Amino acid sequence: MWNSNQLTDQLKIKYPIIQAGMAGGITTPELVAAVSNAGGLGNVGAGYMRAEDMRHTIRAIHKLTTQPFGVNVFNPEYPETKQDYIDQTNDLLSPIRKELGVAPVSISEDTPSTLFAEQIDVLLEENVPVISFTFGIPSKEMIQKLKAANKILIGTATTVEEAIMNEASGMDMVVVQGSEAGGHRGTFNGSFEKAMIGTVALVPQVVDRVNIPVIAAGGIMDGRGVLASVILGAQGVQMGTAFVTSVESGAKKQHKEAILNSAEDGPVMTSAFSGKPARGVENKFITSMKQHEQQLPDYPIQNTMTNAIRKEAAKQNKPEYMSLWSGQNTRLSQNKSADQIISDIVSQIRNISQGF
Amino acid sequence: MWNSNQLTDQLKIKYPIIQAGMAGGITTPELVAAVSNAGGLGNVGAGYMRAEDMRHTIRAIHKLTTQPFGVNVFNPEYPETKQDYIDQTNDLLSPIRKELGVAPVSISEDTPSTLFAEQIDVLLEENVPVISFTFGIPSKEMIQKLKAANKILIGTATTVEEAIMNEASGMDMVVVQGSEAGGHRGTFNGSFEKAMIGTVALVPQVVDRVNIPVIAAGGIMDGRGVLASVILGAQGVQMGTAFVTSVESGAKKQHKEAILNSAEDGPVMTSAFSGKPARGVENKFITSMKQHEQQLPDYPIQNTMTNAIRKEAAKQNKPEYMSLWSGQNTRLSQNKSADQIISDIVSQIRNISQGF
Repeated sequence: MWNSNQLTDQLKIKYPIIQAGMAGGITTPELVAAVSNAGGLGNVGAGYMRAEDMRHTIRAIHKLTTQPFGVNVFNPEYPETKQDYIDQTNDLLSPIRKELGVAPVSISEDTPSTLFAEQIDVLLEENVPVISFTFGIPSKEMIQKLKAANKILIGTATTVEEAIMNEASGMDMVVVQGSEAGGHRGTFNGSFEKAMIGTVALVPQVVDRVNIPVIAAGGIMDGRGVLASVILGAQGVQMGTAFVTSVESGAKKQHKEAILNSAEDGPVMTSAFSGKPARGVENKFITSMKQHEQQLPDYPIQNTMTNAIRKEAAKQNKPEYMSLWSGQNTRLSQNKSADQIISDIVSQIRNISQGF
Repeated sequence: MWNSNQLTDQLKIKYPIIQAGMAGGITTPELVAAVSNAGGLGNVGAGYMRAEDMRHTIRAIHKLTTQPFGVNVFNPEYPETKQDYIDQTNDLLSPIRKELGVAPVSISEDTPSTLFAEQIDVLLEENVPVISFTFGIPSKEMIQKLKAANKILIGTATTVEEAIMNEASGMDMVVVQGSEAGGHRGTFNGSFEKAMIGTVALVPQVVDRVNIPVIAAGGIMDGRGVLASVILGAQGVQMGTAFVTSVESGAKKQHKEAILNSAEDGPVMTSAFSGKPARGVENKFITSMKQHEQQLPDYPIQNTMTNAIRKEAAKQNKPEYMSLWSGQNTRLSQNKSADQIISDIVSQIRNISQGF
């Protein structure tokens, strides 16, 4: 049976369908709770969240569901501050800031490790059974502390090697992110470009080499994708784009519409928004920044530099300056409730399975 | 049942497993016949073959099998002859030619349409039930002529739009080539880069929009991949890399070894060998030519310019100058007979299906 395995047992969920912890306001308490109430695992995308905001969100979710859910956090990164690149990018962004009436951004010395430690403290204080990590693997000490607190830990990998590293670190499960996926690449050990492996190729190669449950991600939107992933050897799936356009999603309406109206070749890879490669629906910002991608400040400095632009662009209804993250399976996107998305998957799988 | 549908009926084959018609000497009569005798559909990769060589190959296959098989041909392309790019590329290739003792190549005015017409004449004269096309769609007249001769025609698509164009042209089936695939991209209508859609995302989007049988390709190597493709909505699969390393394959031993020893991130996209994007195991030639990829002569001129280098490199055992075409699912490659590859797929699918 597709929905009864080690993963569903460990996570205590009915269906091995994990809603990706997408950052940037998409994963409202309503979305997370709706997914968990429907039998999947909802996840808060807390990557950029201040610790106290995360706490409020977690408490809001507990009011909406008694089912398990998770929180996704970003391992801290230590960018090199290349002042040349920052100055140059400020010049490039200046006309857009003027058009939108947005003030220039001053780049302070980031303290990403402080934020991360504070987030982890909140996760230890609040009742959150599942914690997932993107952009690398936390320290041995932190993993031990979280495991001692009975947290289930999920890592992210984009290559076989990264999956093996996750297993070796003590992660309980690993999300394997195929090249179809929307949003940021989770690559943390080697070339982003070479780690663009399609889900159909990546999943079986990882499954053959790790013993922890593998969660397939990238291009999975419906019952066909879920069942195909299970056949490839995954115990579950993580779906992002499918939930971005859901009724409960906090994604901006322009973001939802961009996905709903996009063809499969609409979402392209870009580093222009954050300094790190990510897949989103192509727009003016991506195309105009493309030639400058080699001279952008590192992630997350570039993310900080474009943040106000993206927010203000949404307010002024200028999707040409927004980050419209999306995977490649856009034509399967629908504006349905999260509950409906999951029940449709379940009945689609039931229909397909009857053919065997 | 995965192996009983419109595709298997039309092609009169037992299993919907199509061995890709890979050009360059890989698809020996022994390989094609072995696949067809095992219940799949063997295919001659005749893209670069002279018409009379194709005729001899077809006759050799008829001596080895009574089962249906196919021939793949390339739609002719009309490159722009940019003398600057040719001169510049000759300069780049000159040290390699010296190292290998290979003479410079003179680029004659190509007559690709003459070759194509001659190939089609042979296909009409000889008993070949299935003809597949890469790099575009043949003329209406040619399609009518082939259909009048009861040939089954298979097109190649890398986007939904290209699949729709294939169906509208009268193709009986369409191969849908995901970004995982090895060798040349079949893209013929738009940007190569944007048409890099993973199999998991591409197949269901195409299936929802065409009525002819869809054949999934890209990253499919075993029973898991075949069954997953069927669940995504494909009626069959096309497998290339899996057969390159087979016993009966005519691939050079260095080519087979490169795939067998490669990790999943070994095969990269390159235009360096032919002027058209293709996926192969990264080597010195690819890395050293990468910075010049924007100034290469068009396909197939660049292919002609590197042809002698690649052949001689194989003889001198210098895989660093060979085109080592491969998809992304390298870790699943094995040096088995084609018959064994197919029977392993069949028993793997039987085992998986019993779990339903």
